Amino acid sequence: MKKGLLFVVSGPSGAGKGTVCGEFVKLTNISLSVSMTTRKPRPGEIDGKNYYFVSEESFLKTVSAGGFLEYAKVYDHYYGTPKDPVTTKLAAGADVLLEIDTQGALNVRREWPEGIFVYILPPSMRELRRRITSRGTETSAAIDLRLGESLKEMDRIDQYDYCVINERPSEAADSLTAILKAERTRVGPYIYETIRTYKEEMRCYIHPSI
Amino acid sequence: MKKGLLFVVSGPSGAGKGTVCGEFVKLTNISLSVSMTTRKPRPGEIDGKNYYFVSEESFLKTVSAGGFLEYAKVYDHYYGTPKDPVTTKLAAGADVLLEIDTQGALNVRREWPEGIFVYILPPSMRELRRRITSRGTETSAAIDLRLGESLKEMDRIDQYDYCVINERPSEAADSLTAILKAERTRVGPYIYETIRTYKEEMRCYIHPSI
Repeated sequence: MKKGLLFVVSGPSGAGKGTVCGEFVKLTNISLSVSMTTRKPRPGEIDGKNYYFVSEESFLKTVSAGGFLEYAKVYDHYYGTPKDPVTTKLAAGADVLLEIDTQGALNVRREWPEGIFVYILPPSMRELRRRITSRGTETSAAIDLRLGESLKEMDRIDQYDYCVINERPSEAADSLTAILKAERTRVGPYIYETIRTYKEEMRCYIHPSI
Repeated sequence: MKKGLLFVVSGPSGAGKGTVCGEFVKLTNISLSVSMTTRKPRPGEIDGKNYYFVSEESFLKTVSAGGFLEYAKVYDHYYGTPKDPVTTKLAAGADVLLEIDTQGALNVRREWPEGIFVYILPPSMRELRRRITSRGTETSAAIDLRLGESLKEMDRIDQYDYCVINERPSEAADSLTAILKAERTRVGPYIYETIRTYKEEMRCYIHPSI
């Protein structure tokens, strides 16, 4: 039985993780993990689909119970990845996608070093600023803060396996699909097991003397 | 300037490397390196396309001149990968495909550890025997020798990055294409350089104070 892959997509706010991951999920049969957060829903966001939107009290109860794979406080709000659904799916052979901020991704890397970690970059800083500005939910000062933070985070990119520059979301999603397909063919326990069956086959059925 | 990737495809004789690589070259713009050999052409093989077929004297002259990336003697014949065309193409940013036997692949791994090494497995030993037998060029004893050697070689699979099981050549070629596309997005010097340009952009154009 081949175990599933934990596929972690991260990157600065505004790089387009959400859109890219949406397209990626449509192209593959990967299962998107839904995060929990204490921040308010943005227009169009649906509880249980984009996030589980919960109160701070409820969030901290899950923290105490050890129920998160990772959690972090980012800009006054908590974000966390519930652990149980992820480990259950992986054990059943399903690949699981986490779309999380960079602080969360690095925490998961420590917990789960064999995961596949992909960083999404914007095509330029100017474009990143344009994307954040067009959301219209933040002040200019808040945007400057984010851009500065994003640049600092990029210095941790050596902690990631792959980096996709998101010029067009559909092309970036194609790259994620290729990475997933490639990683499924990595030399590992499943291949060693296959070779053991070949030796057995050779010994028993084809040529008993070899 | 992004350097090209050295993409090495290997596996036991009869696993179908040649067919798979033929399809793979059609799907991508990778450049196939043509090997040199002292063995006689098989029916349908073309000099300068499948191999450069040369005399033993000529081959050994190239060896003395240090002109091979790797060379090996396999079943009484020499096989080698001419070095110059490979290094020239990689430096110019082109990806280069080597389709070579397992002994050669491991020699290249030592010389060029940053290459991408893919092992092609047959779907079963029974199928491997069928494929070798249907070539009709070898005695049953020679086939048994090859199968035994193939099994021994498979123990070296931990030296490879990826393993593709060749059930259908077109699907195996799709897997190689995904691996190449994925490896082009690996975090490495090109990405570090991109991030340096983002910092510069931020400093000069967007927000001089950050």
